[in-house]
Amino acid sequence: MPDATPPDAAPLSDGDLQFTPVSEVGEFGLIDRLRDRLGDAASARDLVVGIGDDAAVYRVGGAGSDGSARVHVVTTDALVEGVHFDRTYVPLRALGWKAVAVNVSDVAAMNASPRFATVTLGLPNNLSVEGAEALYAGIAEACERYGLAVVGGDTTASARLVISVTVVGEADESAIVTRAGAAPGDLLCVTGDLGSAAAGLQVLLAGKDAMDTGGAAGGDGAEGAAPDLAEFAYVVERQLMPQARLDRVRQWAEAGVRPTALVDVSDGLASEAHHLSQAGTVGAVIDGGLLPIHVQTALAAQRFDARAEAYALYGGEDYELLFTLPEAEAPKLDPATYAVVGQIVEPDEGVVLRLPDGNRVPLVAGGYKHY
Amino acid sequence: MPDATPPDAAPLSDGDLQFTPVSEVGEFGLIDRLRDRLGDAASARDLVVGIGDDAAVYRVGGAGSDGSARVHVVTTDALVEGVHFDRTYVPLRALGWKAVAVNVSDVAAMNASPRFATVTLGLPNNLSVEGAEALYAGIAEACERYGLAVVGGDTTASARLVISVTVVGEADESAIVTRAGAAPGDLLCVTGDLGSAAAGLQVLLAGKDAMDTGGAAGGDGAEGAAPDLAEFAYVVERQLMPQARLDRVRQWAEAGVRPTALVDVSDGLASEAHHLSQAGTVGAVIDGGLLPIHVQTALAAQRFDARAEAYALYGGEDYELLFTLPEAEAPKLDPATYAVVGQIVEPDEGVVLRLPDGNRVPLVAGGYKHY
Repeated sequence: MPDATPPDAAPLSDGDLQFTPVSEVGEFGLIDRLRDRLGDAASARDLVVGIGDDAAVYRVGGAGSDGSARVHVVTTDALVEGVHFDRTYVPLRALGWKAVAVNVSDVAAMNASPRFATVTLGLPNNLSVEGAEALYAGIAEACERYGLAVVGGDTTASARLVISVTVVGEADESAIVTRAGAAPGDLLCVTGDLGSAAAGLQVLLAGKDAMDTGGAAGGDGAEGAAPDLAEFAYVVERQLMPQARLDRVRQWAEAGVRPTALVDVSDGLASEAHHLSQAGTVGAVIDGGLLPIHVQTALAAQRFDARAEAYALYGGEDYELLFTLPEAEAPKLDPATYAVVGQIVEPDEGVVLRLPDGNRVPLVAGGYKHY
Repeated sequence: MPDATPPDAAPLSDGDLQFTPVSEVGEFGLIDRLRDRLGDAASARDLVVGIGDDAAVYRVGGAGSDGSARVHVVTTDALVEGVHFDRTYVPLRALGWKAVAVNVSDVAAMNASPRFATVTLGLPNNLSVEGAEALYAGIAEACERYGLAVVGGDTTASARLVISVTVVGEADESAIVTRAGAAPGDLLCVTGDLGSAAAGLQVLLAGKDAMDTGGAAGGDGAEGAAPDLAEFAYVVERQLMPQARLDRVRQWAEAGVRPTALVDVSDGLASEAHHLSQAGTVGAVIDGGLLPIHVQTALAAQRFDARAEAYALYGGEDYELLFTLPEAEAPKLDPATYAVVGQIVEPDEGVVLRLPDGNRVPLVAGGYKHY
């Protein structure tokens, strides 16, 4: 008698009788469940750092320059149309660049150097060959800029444009810095400025809105008019073509400095401070008066009736490096290459923002959520 | 004056003035263009094999067991809903398994062993947490089966379900086998049987059609009735949960045999023979009477009024290994572990199928195309 279920239906069963929407557990909840399910991996031979940091780390055999083991790091990050970007205002070349840069940023966040990449492209049928080539051009530019080589990939059709990049990097094991490792008293520092990528996104969205409503031609600065992109060139560039801070990783190596903890700012300062807090079992005090904010970020915030501090704390996508350092180490670094934004404290103090009046308020982890 | 284009519009320009549909160049055409665009990568330090084989190969430092360099291989393959699978008849657990297995197969096709994986999931909002966990379970089972560990990943929302897996494997450089390397006179051999995954797909599609048209309950075997899945359990399993032939890779190592050329059968025997032909600048004669075809494959072909040889030559997704071997090496292998399907010949003979009457017909590369 015909049977519509496979004979081995039991082993193949989906457990899909219940339906809990993914939104109930969120992206981080799903990743936690994946890690739980794949927990045995943590004990895999040669694995130094598994799921949960910016990249995984494993020994590859051979010794590094200082006698410690040579390790590779691997990380993967995908950009999905309609979730991470909107093709109406993101040029494909910028998209290709960004897909590589965000992965290089994860490698930098382990204090390692990128070497090889694989690129998986899901191409919708409304993308032309010329469009795909613009994407490739951006990928190639970023690879050239950061010194890595695309060595493999997969290209397939897809309803929406998807770019998934995996990057393999290398380091001496002794150089690797994880999110854990910060100690109370350490300075909390950041490379570059914060909030500019979020400001740039607001500028791009406003430009799109104005185009949609036909307001792009209006030059009087009235509500609904497109912002002058030339005025906001810096923040727009920060959003479209973020830079991975490999330059800082190299400067630290030259200065003989190894941060005690390190994470890249993809989800906003508040979230990343929580990541360091959780991984290192420490607290963090961020000084609201010390946030490094670019003048265009401040101007954009003013324009959109927002607070620049909110862009910096919650905006995300800046891809700067947040790191901790014992105070005694600070003099070894060029002060132009970083800003001190706070301090690591005892875990019971939590993650807090110090206001100009000296009061402390709890800082809630937040940032761009794709669910 | 407001300006709707970014100030650096020129460097970000998409070159999207022309619109050539991707279908005009196809997947392989796009990959060729990507390779051309990223051609410099071929000269990357430590790179042994770049884009164009089943996996890329790079030296990682340290020496292998035989004194040759230790190398890693990396490969990536994505499964996209609506392109590679249909959730109405593919259980999520099988999908998780397959996403890992097809990448392990690419590692096996370099004569290497898998070690680490990263998994990128694009989850649509009609997938439940329970569904995602079934997917994870399949991923975990395949990783356990093939001895690799998931060490990282990315989880994001997506309009359609996307699973992109990257696997890193290892080997001694002297053990690596590429698609090139076959010599005229070498035997053309394959592990396992061919065409069963295609047969399984036909069985699943017929079951789906029957359900769609309400014919699933009909047991008379008439047109439109669902096939008895128990009768076709083997071919259905071959389609849903293909096995990567790491077992053969290990047997070759134990027997002291190194194939001269190697590729996995993902696109069908005809396509893979062309891959060996192009990479090695050789021809190949496939003997139509020597194709290893499982009895269920033959029965399915009969049921669907198709030819089993066509499933074997063009069906794809069998994930068996197609390899070449000097005739003198053959006695070292257990004859139960492979079938000889033809011979490597001079390049001017092309890739041909020898018919039972002795005539030769050109074999056209074909198989599942996703464009």
